Amino acid sequence: MSSKIAVIGLGSMGYGIAQSALRAGNTTHGFDINPDAVSRFSGEGGAPGGLSDVAGTLDVVAVVVLNAPQTEAVLFGSDGIVAKMKAGAVVVACATVPPEFARRMEARCSEAGVHYLDAPISGGSVKAASGKLSIMASGKAEAFAAARPFLDATAETVFELGEAAGAGSAMKAVNQLLAGVHIAAMAEAMTFGMTQGVSPETFAKVIPRCAGSSWMLENRAPHIVAGDYTPHSSVDIWPKDLGIVLDIAKSAKFGAPLTAAALQQFLAASGSGLGAEDDAAVAKVYARNAGLKLPGEG
Amino acid sequence: MSSKIAVIGLGSMGYGIAQSALRAGNTTHGFDINPDAVSRFSGEGGAPGGLSDVAGTLDVVAVVVLNAPQTEAVLFGSDGIVAKMKAGAVVVACATVPPEFARRMEARCSEAGVHYLDAPISGGSVKAASGKLSIMASGKAEAFAAARPFLDATAETVFELGEAAGAGSAMKAVNQLLAGVHIAAMAEAMTFGMTQGVSPETFAKVIPRCAGSSWMLENRAPHIVAGDYTPHSSVDIWPKDLGIVLDIAKSAKFGAPLTAAALQQFLAASGSGLGAEDDAAVAKVYARNAGLKLPGEG
Repeated sequence: MSSKIAVIGLGSMGYGIAQSALRAGNTTHGFDINPDAVSRFSGEGGAPGGLSDVAGTLDVVAVVVLNAPQTEAVLFGSDGIVAKMKAGAVVVACATVPPEFARRMEARCSEAGVHYLDAPISGGSVKAASGKLSIMASGKAEAFAAARPFLDATAETVFELGEAAGAGSAMKAVNQLLAGVHIAAMAEAMTFGMTQGVSPETFAKVIPRCAGSSWMLENRAPHIVAGDYTPHSSVDIWPKDLGIVLDIAKSAKFGAPLTAAALQQFLAASGSGLGAEDDAAVAKVYARNAGLKLPGEG
Repeated sequence: MSSKIAVIGLGSMGYGIAQSALRAGNTTHGFDINPDAVSRFSGEGGAPGGLSDVAGTLDVVAVVVLNAPQTEAVLFGSDGIVAKMKAGAVVVACATVPPEFARRMEARCSEAGVHYLDAPISGGSVKAASGKLSIMASGKAEAFAAARPFLDATAETVFELGEAAGAGSAMKAVNQLLAGVHIAAMAEAMTFGMTQGVSPETFAKVIPRCAGSSWMLENRAPHIVAGDYTPHSSVDIWPKDLGIVLDIAKSAKFGAPLTAAALQQFLAASGSGLGAEDDAAVAKVYARNAGLKLPGEG
């Protein structure tokens, strides 16, 4: 079954998501503050019309922006879309946000007769473009049902985490805690190894076959070996996402010392001008502090 | 080709290693300060005789003790074995030790005409007993050749890390850094999730399929879900091994903030009486600090 879908936010994740929704046969609109992204998507077959004009026709509004304030602005800002949506349509909120924020957005959408799916995404831009994301979703059965054509088009795996908005965002926060810590740990271990004569190449060959491996290590260590910091996922994601984790943790009076330590390393990377590089560039902070030269450095 | 092998240290790793060496057809002696372990291994077919009596007949002496001081005592203590070994025999040193210690031991063995293989082990007691360890080995070609029957009998994977003693221990230190950080990160993430309504069961089901997974998480999270802290690898391993990592790092003027944070959590676990439990019990530190009850807790 095809739907009328709008994807709001055509960044590295949103653009791929819009492509996947379109490829699956849905009428798909793409919107962004960057007009180039919008016209590029139109050129690939995106449906025409301004957001205000088409809002009332949409079945699914996927919000693929950076964070909670941007999500709230899209939904309930001065020109917010929820007030214009038809009853029974669904907002699919994909940004990494605090669980409490998701619950609040759901309540406000519900007042307007619109369903809300708390649906943070995982997998990176390549999987977004191929329709193979992991989505950590929670919401009422009606929200899942209304979102189904969108989920089918964009996700390989949908974790259905219950009826309560916030559960999806909670699981995403847990996953981001681990992913961020594991990237920093990979960088720490690889550069520590260099001080002991273990080359990055040997590290990347041996450790994935040992108990010290992680998904992030297997994915990111090759970037350092290749000296290639093209941002698949950038350093600046982590001060944001680990910041969300620590905000939530603080509200729950939960101490998270490893997360806090990892955040400091990403802040040092961002503060020293590496924010737009691939997140594996956190290794440069360690290397600089230890007087080491990573592969590809002069 | 079968060898005459002695395994010194019949703890959870050494006993399984001795069984694997024996099963492969080697004449295998087992020695330990605990006479019960020695007589149990004799009953399974271990070769007879005191260590001093048989030392001169051995091809391989595998030292599977806790740390560097114990290794040095076995090799060069008041009744040290190296002085009694025949020329061309090999010491296979399996404990986690500083690389510099491994280099020093090799030099002293070499003076005595004995080869030295720097060969820390990884994989746990089950793989030790089934002959499927990973061994991170470095040493001269002659040392590898002399140790080959032992390596064939006990290891599924031998990483051959070059001719220089110390390289094996360096890689082991890198692996332990990651493994220890990943266990603590798993505990931090799982308990953080509990504060947000993510149950340990859901965590253990979802995260292994996400980018936040690690080898250690997949292995240890089920222990917490089951409330089973039978020590496959105990909390007390980590103050030791992460302590070695931080000692080496300090000597190299290398700052390792995530390792340091993880060590503090294992120290809190050990200091509060959990040292002999499975290392997944580090989650109890987080749970206690956050007023959470883990599965199986009253």
